Amino acid sequence: MITEGENILLIDKKGKKYMIKCKGKFHSHYGILDLDELIGKDYGTKIKTHKGDEFVVLKPNFIDYIEKMRKMPQIIQPKDAAVILAVTGLSRGSNVVEAGIGSGALTIFLANVIYPGKIYCYEVREDFARIAEKNIREFKLNNVFIKIKDIYEGIEEEDIDLVALDIPEPEKVVKDAYESLKYGGFVFAYTPSLEQMLRFREKAEKYFQIKTMECILREYESRKLGTRPKTLMIGHTGFLTFGRKIF
Amino acid sequence: MITEGENILLIDKKGKKYMIKCKGKFHSHYGILDLDELIGKDYGTKIKTHKGDEFVVLKPNFIDYIEKMRKMPQIIQPKDAAVILAVTGLSRGSNVVEAGIGSGALTIFLANVIYPGKIYCYEVREDFARIAEKNIREFKLNNVFIKIKDIYEGIEEEDIDLVALDIPEPEKVVKDAYESLKYGGFVFAYTPSLEQMLRFREKAEKYFQIKTMECILREYESRKLGTRPKTLMIGHTGFLTFGRKIF
Amino acid sequence: MITEGENILLIDKKGKKYMIKCKGKFHSHYGILDLDELIGKDYGTKIKTHKGDEFVVLKPNFIDYIEKMRKMPQIIQPKDAAVILAVTGLSRGSNVVEAGIGSGALTIFLANVIYPGKIYCYEVREDFARIAEKNIREFKLNNVFIKIKDIYEGIEEEDIDLVALDIPEPEKVVKDAYESLKYGGFVFAYTPSLEQMLRFREKAEKYFQIKTMECILREYESRKLGTRPKTLMIGHTGFLTFGRKIF
Amino acid sequence: MITEGENILLIDKKGKKYMIKCKGKFHSHYGILDLDELIGKDYGTKIKTHKGDEFVVLKPNFIDYIEKMRKMPQIIQPKDAAVILAVTGLSRGSNVVEAGIGSGALTIFLANVIYPGKIYCYEVREDFARIAEKNIREFKLNNVFIKIKDIYEGIEEEDIDLVALDIPEPEKVVKDAYESLKYGGFVFAYTPSLEQMLRFREKAEKYFQIKTMECILREYESRKLGTRPKTLMIGHTGFLTFGRKIF
Repeated sequence: MITEGENILLIDKKGKKYMIKCKGKFHSHYGILDLDELIGKDYGTKIKTHKGDEFVVLKPNFIDYIEKMRKMPQIIQPKDAAVILAVTGLSRGSNVVEAGIGSGALTIFLANVIYPGKIYCYEVREDFARIAEKNIREFKLNNVFIKIKDIYEGIEEEDIDLVALDIPEPEKVVKDAYESLKYGGFVFAYTPSLEQMLRFREKAEKYFQIKTMECILREYESRKLGTRPKTLMIGHTGFLTFGRKIF
Repeated sequence: MITEGENILLIDKKGKKYMIKCKGKFHSHYGILDLDELIGKDYGTKIKTHKGDEFVVLKPNFIDYIEKMRKMPQIIQPKDAAVILAVTGLSRGSNVVEAGIGSGALTIFLANVIYPGKIYCYEVREDFARIAEKNIREFKLNNVFIKIKDIYEGIEEEDIDLVALDIPEPEKVVKDAYESLKYGGFVFAYTPSLEQMLRFREKAEKYFQIKTMECILREYESRKLGTRPKTLMIGHTGFLTFGRKIF
Repeated sequence: MITEGENILLIDKKGKKYMIKCKGKFHSHYGILDLDELIGKDYGTKIKTHKGDEFVVLKPNFIDYIEKMRKMPQIIQPKDAAVILAVTGLSRGSNVVEAGIGSGALTIFLANVIYPGKIYCYEVREDFARIAEKNIREFKLNNVFIKIKDIYEGIEEEDIDLVALDIPEPEKVVKDAYESLKYGGFVFAYTPSLEQMLRFREKAEKYFQIKTMECILREYESRKLGTRPKTLMIGHTGFLTFGRKIF
Repeated sequence: MITEGENILLIDKKGKKYMIKCKGKFHSHYGILDLDELIGKDYGTKIKTHKGDEFVVLKPNFIDYIEKMRKMPQIIQPKDAAVILAVTGLSRGSNVVEAGIGSGALTIFLANVIYPGKIYCYEVREDFARIAEKNIREFKLNNVFIKIKDIYEGIEEEDIDLVALDIPEPEKVVKDAYESLKYGGFVFAYTPSLEQMLRFREKAEKYFQIKTMECILREYESRKLGTRPKTLMIGHTGFLTFGRKIF
């Protein structure tokens, strides 16, 4: 049931999504919606603008939130975050150290999977930390611990399953990551450029069993002549390098 | 601490992995290991063969198990399973219907993320169901419910977040999937061939907001002349089509 | 030596190219160029605007012309035209039938390689034929023969090395293509959509040994943090299907 | 018409190709063929083994020869050679310098397109030069000039349209390539590894307008469940870096 002030997802007749608080009026391209009408109704209900155009009301999920965050600079995309799970096997009860919190998208993704395991986030920029904290609060996740600290100066946690690095010089953290990890655990570095990736690999291969990959999503669309891969695609986001602590 | 009879992961000096029960002797390429020596020790410990070659002992994680299953025919790979999370936002407490359980790899992957939500698996072949059940038991997951039933004959569950179809003719389940899903929920079809994908899209677009994609992992390796994308790569596993129930 | 009225390629200090006739004044973003100054000079010479900004003058090559054509709708890109050579082994003296001339980009590409072999182009739209003819004339190619004719009604030529089809329903030409080809020759269909490609393959595999491929160019760029694959890439142009006449 | 001793292409009923001299007997998996029967017949003719299995006889083209060479180590593949044409616009009458002749596959590809332009090949290893020369002779190309010389020690030719480098350290030739090229001409480096590519780019961008790309061919196949991209694909051959001489 929809309650007042809650985040809701409105979808117009063209499939476009709007995430808003359920309160007062919403001015859309199709006219004005009176959101107070929705309170007490079930998700999936429809609502009409004053001009008669229909919207559907959904409960936003996890990815709906992250899509909203996507407009913020430099977040690790869900496809890349998902590869972390596919490679490391992170699961319920795992513990994580993260550096470079950005807007918190990766944090939320991982925190949700490892719950009740804990995630410790190092971030030097207070403004980023505040934005991330606000985003995390929406999910009522109580297993996230943000620290205004520079990870280049050391990692305090031990017996960790994953150290995830989204910072410019992850090679500087290799040794500290090794020490904070349990045997079988992973260090992960997200690096947009080849040079960063090569510098991290060079350093990391002294400590870890490493592998680097890219995750490329190829989307299809329907057009007049038929179905086809999209003409324009995201060709690159970042290189994903994983090191497993074995010896 | 390592206990008797538990699954352990042995890693040899070349990085090769062996998943075995911790009991008795293990005959490796490098000589014989006496596994009883390991009982009571911590993970990360080393053990030597009678010839003096060292192995490391790790606690297998989630993906280590799935890699072992991979030798079984036709499982959805972790990279593709991970995209399901990235697109649908499935998370703790979500409920899932699955058809085509295979060896249970996708089931385990999803069951772990949605716990304490439930996953209901339709499988017509009893032999597959038995193998999957055995694999699932290793994870002590009590939120998986396997049904020896043909999903083409209907879906009994309601208010579901995801209906995941790894069957030859997913287009036959579109209408039933629609009815069992909550608003905002997703149907997912995994189809190796173009023709299957096109048939599913054609039917599904009458009910759902659809998108199709492929997830391509490009791996890098170190060679004498330097680092480079692997010469041989997995070019295709399956097409991933998602439909969201909106109207 | 540069002569009056000839096509020249001007390149500004940012590397941007302009293809123009060498005559009179050229108004650029950087000021006015007096092109008559260039007559009689060597290619590679520099010329200054009235504001003092420098341009280099090059002799446009083959691809410079095609890039100019690219702004026209629906031309087969050089990368895809090049794959035709790589698969069919077309070379000096080969003879070609082409349908769907577009702006003539593929025609020019192939005519240049097969010279003194001949290329016969079927085109139903007179306006397209005229544009193509004008483009071809710039290259002084006398081995191109444009026919205002519908290839769906038959192919008149025999003993052909390649029948290249850039038309909506190439499957309708399969039998005629077979008859006009010499043994060892190829039919080629360029199809943007999956459905077109599948229809052509289904028909063509009765006559030919077929293979389908896509050619994906992945470009790299230098950015502040280093070198990396371009974020936005052309993910798809068309499917390239080749059938070789063997039996 | 087929003449004695000529190279012919035999194709068995499964589509497998054999390139052999037309003389005497050929022992195939399907039985013995008497090739002397073929002399004086037309290409496209069929011939039976002593067991009654049929082969088709074709005139090998350009790519059939290169496929045969492909079993030799490290040749630039036709797809990559074709990109050279697509980027540089090399055409009839262009002149080329090449280093690292390998087995001559790229040489033959380019020599055919630029004829009557000339190609000068620098190769330090006499054994490679001899193999290449033998392969080139099969094509009766008289515009190829092989020099047993180290290109690191300088380039003698001038007014060149393309300097093509398939050598381990192409960055050493950047300055000499610049001097031998005409304005508007291109240097091209084929480098398998990222490190080589980055070293070449760093040096070349001081002289040239550069771009780097990879050409990825994605092939499709028919299987029981339908058509699909091949499971195993060639994921990488080499990075293709082009520099155009403008200033």
